[in-house]
Amino acid sequence: MKHLVFVALVFVARVFAIGQSASAAPVPDQSSPATSNVPGAPTPSVHTDRSITFTLKAPDARTVEVAGGDGLGSGPFPMTKNAEGVWSVTTPPAVPGFHYYWFVLDGVAVNDPSSETYFGYGKETSGVEVPEAGADYYAIADVPHGEVREKRYLSKTTGEWRRARVYTPPGYDKSPRTRYPVLILQHGSGEDETGWTRQGDAQFILDNLIASGKARPMIVVMDRGYGTRMATPPVKLGPGTPAVEVKTAFSAFEDVIVHDLIPAIDASYRTIPDREHRAMAGLSMGGMQTLFITLHHMDLFAYIGSFSGPIVPNLDSKQSLGSVPPGPFDTKTAYEGAFKNPSAFNSRVNLLWLGVGTAEPELFRAGIGGAARALEAAGVKVVYFESNGTAHEWQTWRRALNDFAPRLFRN
Amino acid sequence: MKHLVFVALVFVARVFAIGQSASAAPVPDQSSPATSNVPGAPTPSVHTDRSITFTLKAPDARTVEVAGGDGLGSGPFPMTKNAEGVWSVTTPPAVPGFHYYWFVLDGVAVNDPSSETYFGYGKETSGVEVPEAGADYYAIADVPHGEVREKRYLSKTTGEWRRARVYTPPGYDKSPRTRYPVLILQHGSGEDETGWTRQGDAQFILDNLIASGKARPMIVVMDRGYGTRMATPPVKLGPGTPAVEVKTAFSAFEDVIVHDLIPAIDASYRTIPDREHRAMAGLSMGGMQTLFITLHHMDLFAYIGSFSGPIVPNLDSKQSLGSVPPGPFDTKTAYEGAFKNPSAFNSRVNLLWLGVGTAEPELFRAGIGGAARALEAAGVKVVYFESNGTAHEWQTWRRALNDFAPRLFRN
Repeated sequence: MKHLVFVALVFVARVFAIGQSASAAPVPDQSSPATSNVPGAPTPSVHTDRSITFTLKAPDARTVEVAGGDGLGSGPFPMTKNAEGVWSVTTPPAVPGFHYYWFVLDGVAVNDPSSETYFGYGKETSGVEVPEAGADYYAIADVPHGEVREKRYLSKTTGEWRRARVYTPPGYDKSPRTRYPVLILQHGSGEDETGWTRQGDAQFILDNLIASGKARPMIVVMDRGYGTRMATPPVKLGPGTPAVEVKTAFSAFEDVIVHDLIPAIDASYRTIPDREHRAMAGLSMGGMQTLFITLHHMDLFAYIGSFSGPIVPNLDSKQSLGSVPPGPFDTKTAYEGAFKNPSAFNSRVNLLWLGVGTAEPELFRAGIGGAARALEAAGVKVVYFESNGTAHEWQTWRRALNDFAPRLFRN
Repeated sequence: MKHLVFVALVFVARVFAIGQSASAAPVPDQSSPATSNVPGAPTPSVHTDRSITFTLKAPDARTVEVAGGDGLGSGPFPMTKNAEGVWSVTTPPAVPGFHYYWFVLDGVAVNDPSSETYFGYGKETSGVEVPEAGADYYAIADVPHGEVREKRYLSKTTGEWRRARVYTPPGYDKSPRTRYPVLILQHGSGEDETGWTRQGDAQFILDNLIASGKARPMIVVMDRGYGTRMATPPVKLGPGTPAVEVKTAFSAFEDVIVHDLIPAIDASYRTIPDREHRAMAGLSMGGMQTLFITLHHMDLFAYIGSFSGPIVPNLDSKQSLGSVPPGPFDTKTAYEGAFKNPSAFNSRVNLLWLGVGTAEPELFRAGIGGAARALEAAGVKVVYFESNGTAHEWQTWRRALNDFAPRLFRN
């Protein structure tokens, strides 16, 4: 019996662990648990001045620091331990938006058990959401909501079952005869197909834009932006990778999009399956992929968006990617000559949209801004967008989507 | 320029981090990376004898151990460090199925960066999938696939936007006039609405059962099994919590299911909205909740399943939950007298299903098996299922669902 009661206690302790964390003492002052936390976890807590308090119980650790995305500030931030073995630090006011972060515990990067996880840096990573005053365009609101669906499809290119996420707009199920245009929307490197709906709140941005009549109802398809052709080795990507090998990797993903994903989506959903009703956009690496793929397939896409996508005009270069400085953008030769005839490009492409955050490294601003200016000067119609004060992070890309989506499918 | 090149290198290193992890050296012998890993991560790797090799790079750590779910064996397992600062251990052969695990790094439980994360223990947790020879009922196969959707709904009970996951069966979108029965399927404590599709592979179990004609096409709704009524404090659940307070917590969730979730589902999906076409089941705490809710609402449910759900016949008891031994099950008084008239119960309820794993603590087997035997002896029709050799873990519940779902909606 003693054993049974012990088992019962252990069981119940485990059963209700979540209830216990929900009952922890509230943190002091005008701060709130981040919405990115595990439900009930009191920290990270965000103060009214956007400073953030982090805690971790680690009585036996020698050092604990907080490190993370640019918008958190110039960390890492050393934490200090109290008598109960809880380490804590309050970081300086952060930039609004979603920031990846992690603890460095005796030299090892580990997640915060109080945070939900978000796929970034090629792994599950902690994240902290810092509210932006007055910005409600990405909040869940009492408007009709679309749905985010997990779609599996078999890829002939890679030979694997692939996962995509698909946003269907409000009313999709109620209007079984209505067909919709499609935006393919890609994450950045190290992220995956969950990024736009977990970190980016794309579904709420679309819900709100559609509810206010600012955007047309559309289907948004978010794929996992990696792929290796069957029976070929994966490209070993890194700073020293020759640009031509990057091209090999992107080319496999191009075939996934063109030959596997688009047919699977058109077969599964009530799309309008023509170029005038198909857009592609992506952030960072997803922006590179968008330019690479759409400029090869203008028969498939009429709307193109690159959100903070590095401008790499020539993937046939013998240079390695890490050694490419942002040089002048030659509109005649860049991207295999896609822009060499501006009037032909303008009559074919309904929207070319390039954006960057003003707090991104100069490399991005110079490359993206320079390309936009060169294209404009050559007569190519381009929308150039700057996100004020935000870095190479999700707040830049939420704003980008909020500007980009209303411009789609207007022709 | 030097700065720009440095920024470029840092950027590209981050951009392609996932590519690098995919290119790590293969592990020796007949082992394969677990399917629960981050794509490309070589460990945890599962050997043919079901032993598992774990690794973590932590040059400055003093101790690292692996700990986790029952099926891993009687850990924690101390790891040893090599000259490169990589800690590793190969654990004894594990029970097949999905096991939660974590590293204990200088005394702190942390996730494995090589594992995807799975919500358990009230937080995001690492997990390792150990194949079961010959068991393909939960594998993704080349059969028609349903979809898993993220549904948001506003709860009048709790005053919050709630998340549910909804499985719609293959063909749902193609047959806009077909209506479907509904199974509400709940996770265990410390888990959330993602458990059944992430850890449990419920969508593939249903896809496979439906493809082979063994189960009727159905909608499966998985809700987040927690809730606190508006303007009331959350119940502080723990081993010493009086059973009556557990009842308060379950009662709030009951109202969510009955007054918020079911109406939202019936309004959003093509359900057959009557009791003969509505089932509820759950695992562990979800089984407790299922019995609590369905036995109060036999006007709403005709099919009932409790998978490893602790039998707590009387939540009005003054005892705390942790002190309740598995006593004799009085069919006259248990569950507020729901079984006191066996023939009335049998004519009203199409299926009462109770299951448990043979490797679960005796507390569970005695309580669940004892209840099943007492109900049978009293003339209540009950299906009692034992999962051979599996513990209080997901393999038990996959098998449970695979046995339970084919029995639904046959009347």
